[in-house]
Amino acid sequence: MTILDGKLVAAELEEQMGKEILSLKEKTGKVPGLTVIIVGEDPASQIYVRNKDRMAASLGVNSHIIRMSEDVGEAAIIAEINRLNNDDDVDAVLVQLPLPARYDTWKILDYLDPSKDVDRFHPANIGMISVNRTKIYPCTPFGILKILERYNINLSGKHAVVVGRSFIVGKPMAAMLTNLDATVTLCHSKTSNLGEIIRQGDVVVAAIGKPGFVTADMVKDGAILIDVGMNYLESEADVMALCEEDQIKKFRKRGYGITGDIHKDAFKKSSYYTPVPGGVGLTTVTMLMYNTIQLFKQRRGIS
Amino acid sequence: MTILDGKLVAAELEEQMGKEILSLKEKTGKVPGLTVIIVGEDPASQIYVRNKDRMAASLGVNSHIIRMSEDVGEAAIIAEINRLNNDDDVDAVLVQLPLPARYDTWKILDYLDPSKDVDRFHPANIGMISVNRTKIYPCTPFGILKILERYNINLSGKHAVVVGRSFIVGKPMAAMLTNLDATVTLCHSKTSNLGEIIRQGDVVVAAIGKPGFVTADMVKDGAILIDVGMNYLESEADVMALCEEDQIKKFRKRGYGITGDIHKDAFKKSSYYTPVPGGVGLTTVTMLMYNTIQLFKQRRGIS
Repeated sequence: MTILDGKLVAAELEEQMGKEILSLKEKTGKVPGLTVIIVGEDPASQIYVRNKDRMAASLGVNSHIIRMSEDVGEAAIIAEINRLNNDDDVDAVLVQLPLPARYDTWKILDYLDPSKDVDRFHPANIGMISVNRTKIYPCTPFGILKILERYNINLSGKHAVVVGRSFIVGKPMAAMLTNLDATVTLCHSKTSNLGEIIRQGDVVVAAIGKPGFVTADMVKDGAILIDVGMNYLESEADVMALCEEDQIKKFRKRGYGITGDIHKDAFKKSSYYTPVPGGVGLTTVTMLMYNTIQLFKQRRGIS
Repeated sequence: MTILDGKLVAAELEEQMGKEILSLKEKTGKVPGLTVIIVGEDPASQIYVRNKDRMAASLGVNSHIIRMSEDVGEAAIIAEINRLNNDDDVDAVLVQLPLPARYDTWKILDYLDPSKDVDRFHPANIGMISVNRTKIYPCTPFGILKILERYNINLSGKHAVVVGRSFIVGKPMAAMLTNLDATVTLCHSKTSNLGEIIRQGDVVVAAIGKPGFVTADMVKDGAILIDVGMNYLESEADVMALCEEDQIKKFRKRGYGITGDIHKDAFKKSSYYTPVPGGVGLTTVTMLMYNTIQLFKQRRGIS
């Protein structure tokens, strides 16, 4: 039962990236540029965007945030995207999701220049992942890939069970695992025999959003467990039942505890697992910076 | 054990399409236009292209074949694609695959205008399938979908096992089945426990290219078996072991027999199955015409 330490993986990548950005600056006179568009006042999104900006600053990425009011209108958002598509100093553009409900998210994302689409949600980029023609992936599954690589976990021939079919995690993760020669089963809310299927997983990726959903009886001994969930619990009973010791202590201080989609007792049966917090979540913003650097190099033909 | 009759499904669709094309002609003064580019002299491809042209003609699709010599060069192929992209009378463009080995297939396909890409192999179209934003699919998995629909087979909650991860069949099929609420396992040459996994399939789609590969012991009683294989056997022993009675008779006359990837004894355990020949193969060219009509309507804003 080895912990897959997301903090360690992120720190190592960030150190490499800091050096790489310096070296790119020496070579080209430029640093990678990331611009984030945020529409509206969603508090969680505001925090995410601030975290992205902070990490960019700490690595030397040229980072900008464009804040638009909730009622700015589709045309204004699209005009801003077009402006960024045509700005040579901008390598990477991100539209913070979710957009306010009044907007057609796909319609807006389609305006991103695929070569600046740092989240990789443009259909052309999704397609390139499916057919294994790119090595740049959406940040969350890319972070998982980097964690697995760091711990030398070979996926060829393994049965990977991915639970959750979002375009942000589950679908790209399934495609990436298939291209790494895993046999992949993609499960979701309509899957009838979820326990039976998860129990076959040599690797299980849980991206469900339900605290402790994957219980110990649902996993096979020695499985590799990847927990994408990040659930905030405020009831003491839930925290006691689902959280690890350190989160129980934190609950006593701050009134909430954090847990993932995989129950702590399931981790005990695993060969490797990503804890929550401390696992996948810590690599996501790191991979955003990683993608920004890749897009910078790709646009300038630097290998 | 009900036969899923590809010939019947194709005939019904063709009848509908013939009527629809007449009605579109009345409404718009135009008929859907399909142009196929074929490079080189591959005999099988020549036959496929001729069959496509014949069906187009029989339905009233405005069909053209552009034949280019094997050594015509990449620039000439791309120039032809660009010309067709800009020709308003052309709704659908198909580059017959495989291209001769000297060409970079993906590079050439990327030049297709996604809105005229009738095979749906452009990355933007592959991505749209993955995230369930289109109802136009690559012809072979689309034919399978139409067969399943015709026989009122509901996929929600079923475990579908797709064997083969090509971009032509396996990958789009897996994405389509996921979007139809099936739980999908995508298997391939690196899958270690194929029998065990196929045996779980409520639906099995075999696109492997190995005669009789899926044997009776590998399928569950009552499974729905979809056979995408089309294997030509010339040895009498193989024909006797693998072919149905009618193909054994044909072998005696013409020296070869046809069989799929699923063994005839496996079909006996099924609830429904697509025979080979007479199943999936017969719907592929039909769906090419279907897609041509959809692209015609999409470009002209006709619902």
